[in-house]
Amino acid sequence: MGAPENPSHNLRVSAERLWGNLMQAATMGGTAKGGVCRLTLTEEDRQARDWLAKQATALGCAMSVDDMGVMYARQRGQRNDVPPIAIGSHLDSQPTGGKFDGALGVLAALEVLQTLHAAGYETFAPVELVNWTNEEGSRFAPALTASGVFARVFEHDWALARADRSGIRFGEALEKIGYRGSERCGTRKFSAHFEVHIEQGPVLEREGKDIGVVTGVQGTRWFECTMTGAEAHTGSTPMQGRRNALIGAARVIEAVDAIARAHPPLAIATVGLLEVRPNSRNVIPGETFFTIDMRHPRDDVLDAMEHKLGDAVADAASALGLSAALTKIWTQPPVVFDPDCVECVRRAAARCGYSMRDIVSGAQHDSAYVARVAPTSMIFVPCRDGISHNEAEFSSQEQCARGAQVLLHAVLEFDRLLAHRHGQK
Amino acid sequence: MGAPENPSHNLRVSAERLWGNLMQAATMGGTAKGGVCRLTLTEEDRQARDWLAKQATALGCAMSVDDMGVMYARQRGQRNDVPPIAIGSHLDSQPTGGKFDGALGVLAALEVLQTLHAAGYETFAPVELVNWTNEEGSRFAPALTASGVFARVFEHDWALARADRSGIRFGEALEKIGYRGSERCGTRKFSAHFEVHIEQGPVLEREGKDIGVVTGVQGTRWFECTMTGAEAHTGSTPMQGRRNALIGAARVIEAVDAIARAHPPLAIATVGLLEVRPNSRNVIPGETFFTIDMRHPRDDVLDAMEHKLGDAVADAASALGLSAALTKIWTQPPVVFDPDCVECVRRAAARCGYSMRDIVSGAQHDSAYVARVAPTSMIFVPCRDGISHNEAEFSSQEQCARGAQVLLHAVLEFDRLLAHRHGQK
Repeated sequence: MGAPENPSHNLRVSAERLWGNLMQAATMGGTAKGGVCRLTLTEEDRQARDWLAKQATALGCAMSVDDMGVMYARQRGQRNDVPPIAIGSHLDSQPTGGKFDGALGVLAALEVLQTLHAAGYETFAPVELVNWTNEEGSRFAPALTASGVFARVFEHDWALARADRSGIRFGEALEKIGYRGSERCGTRKFSAHFEVHIEQGPVLEREGKDIGVVTGVQGTRWFECTMTGAEAHTGSTPMQGRRNALIGAARVIEAVDAIARAHPPLAIATVGLLEVRPNSRNVIPGETFFTIDMRHPRDDVLDAMEHKLGDAVADAASALGLSAALTKIWTQPPVVFDPDCVECVRRAAARCGYSMRDIVSGAQHDSAYVARVAPTSMIFVPCRDGISHNEAEFSSQEQCARGAQVLLHAVLEFDRLLAHRHGQK
Repeated sequence: MGAPENPSHNLRVSAERLWGNLMQAATMGGTAKGGVCRLTLTEEDRQARDWLAKQATALGCAMSVDDMGVMYARQRGQRNDVPPIAIGSHLDSQPTGGKFDGALGVLAALEVLQTLHAAGYETFAPVELVNWTNEEGSRFAPALTASGVFARVFEHDWALARADRSGIRFGEALEKIGYRGSERCGTRKFSAHFEVHIEQGPVLEREGKDIGVVTGVQGTRWFECTMTGAEAHTGSTPMQGRRNALIGAARVIEAVDAIARAHPPLAIATVGLLEVRPNSRNVIPGETFFTIDMRHPRDDVLDAMEHKLGDAVADAASALGLSAALTKIWTQPPVVFDPDCVECVRRAAARCGYSMRDIVSGAQHDSAYVARVAPTSMIFVPCRDGISHNEAEFSSQEQCARGAQVLLHAVLEFDRLLAHRHGQK
């Protein structure tokens, strides 16, 4: 016989309990089509937060909330002076989102805590579940608000002053649902940060892999554009001399698509949000407001795409007699995750016997910001047809459980690393 | 000396009183930029209606309201068995409308009643002020709802069941503001119908004419289009295989503009309203809903334009893997106004010494429907830069007063015609 097997190696999450929690969370903001509408800091979000706090508290975790509404549920370890290993994601969703985006990461983290608790297994470092506020950016732009503040990318006051389309500020919304804590976001330290997420793309499913070992995140740039022409009556204004702001938007929408297609295969670009003013059937649109999302793993390609976007807006405006204002509101450079964290994920997947591949995340995640201030990696699981940000989003009970199982063992791998660093066996 | 001058020839409206009423009405739904937002059957509309009823009642007029919310204020004449000469327009506005569109027609009619009342002048036939419900069609489509029912173009029940974008039905909205009367809309008879309106185009101003003698209205067709693709995450969905409903809408928006430009100089076409779903920065749009407004004085040209629109929608949908549903929701054929009414307007303008020209209305008006069931014409006054459906819409006190003055004398001209037909001098 060799050395005695480490008891942690046999720990297994409960696929049924995790699935039950996913389905339970999906009732909070659940939609008729089986999706979720749980916009950040709404009543539905509050409900899900309260429920999560109750689950974590039942495990004996200490709850805290910071001034960006980020929730932390800490399970003590042997050495509580060592910063915790953080695990989590977000509970907010898109307006017509699915059951898994964000929720899987939070509930896989809860499942890890539940598994450790049930086994009476004490980690070396504390393990801390984190629920990041406003990952999606649907209600308040930019996305990743709280993790951005945590990573000192955004200023506290600036973040609190972000307003939704009806003028309500982020800080007000936090207060309204009772989740504006006193701890200053970003003062807390993590030994590491791991996040499970559905891939939100087609690669793992297409290649039949169980787990994506996420080595980094592609770069993202967000823009806002306002084009202004002149409102006029659709019935008595000749075509000659019209200044139609919606024609301008239409040209830029087409151009954004063409710019991405001109940089294959990795460039992607999208106009997802467009508002027309006054938006009446018989008024020539006087103003349009729209957003542009551009992504690529390389900054030099993003520079070229951004340049083309500026040209497209200027060309459309000048041809149509419009004025235009294009603003870059968010830049997320390409991110490379911590090699130790990535290796812990890889070893965990191997220990569980799952097939895997390295992958660069197409979507942005809180982990991309947290990686600036703590060693970080992510774990992807396949999702059906690569569909996400959609009510039809789906990963199976087994796929979700594999993600949680790899998260558990990545935590334990990193915990052993920490113990080793602190001179423990 | 010849025959004694007809005393009616000296009647003059009060430019100051009319202007005061216009400014008073503009406070009901008044906007910060000096425009008016008085969407049909809202609280602001109710306020304006109550105020109008009070003014008309003070002149001794009998008020009634029909089941489409149309308001009638009748001033008795010598022969109250003769159907009244109707004068009026509408008090509802665009979301960012001006002070004059509709309001001028109603308040010029009120000014006519006030002038006759103050002079103690008794007409042969009754004179009746009319406030038509939902001319604009901004809140409930189609436009011209009540005049359409009056002219038996629309069914009562169908009109009452029209819903706004939040699902509230026309009938409910009428009840809510207390303007669903019991009289069946369309049972009332008019001897004639005259409407003063701002031109909403650049022609009179450009040519320096005081008055447009409106001989008819161009044809209009309204369409609604829904394009459906697939929602997906903007960050992890490759360009290949996307089904972006907003690209489809962008192509149709451009095509609609091009179709009008391909039929110069009279064709006009516009997409004024567009909704994007789910309308989130990081979701590829899964659905778009938009409206198309096409106008031309000839039906055969409108047929050709409609055909091209169908092609454009089908082409965009098939190229982008979208499904598309295009529906024609409203057809208003070209209208030719009653020659007697037109002649009364022409004589009235001449009697007042105003410069004038014949004009075909580019915009739709309640008069276009009323013309199907009663002899009708309209009187246009210039508006600055041809701008309308815009908070900057403006006609001067003098321009407004000239419109009311011509309306007064067109009524008196037609009244003499009626008296003559009934064997009176």
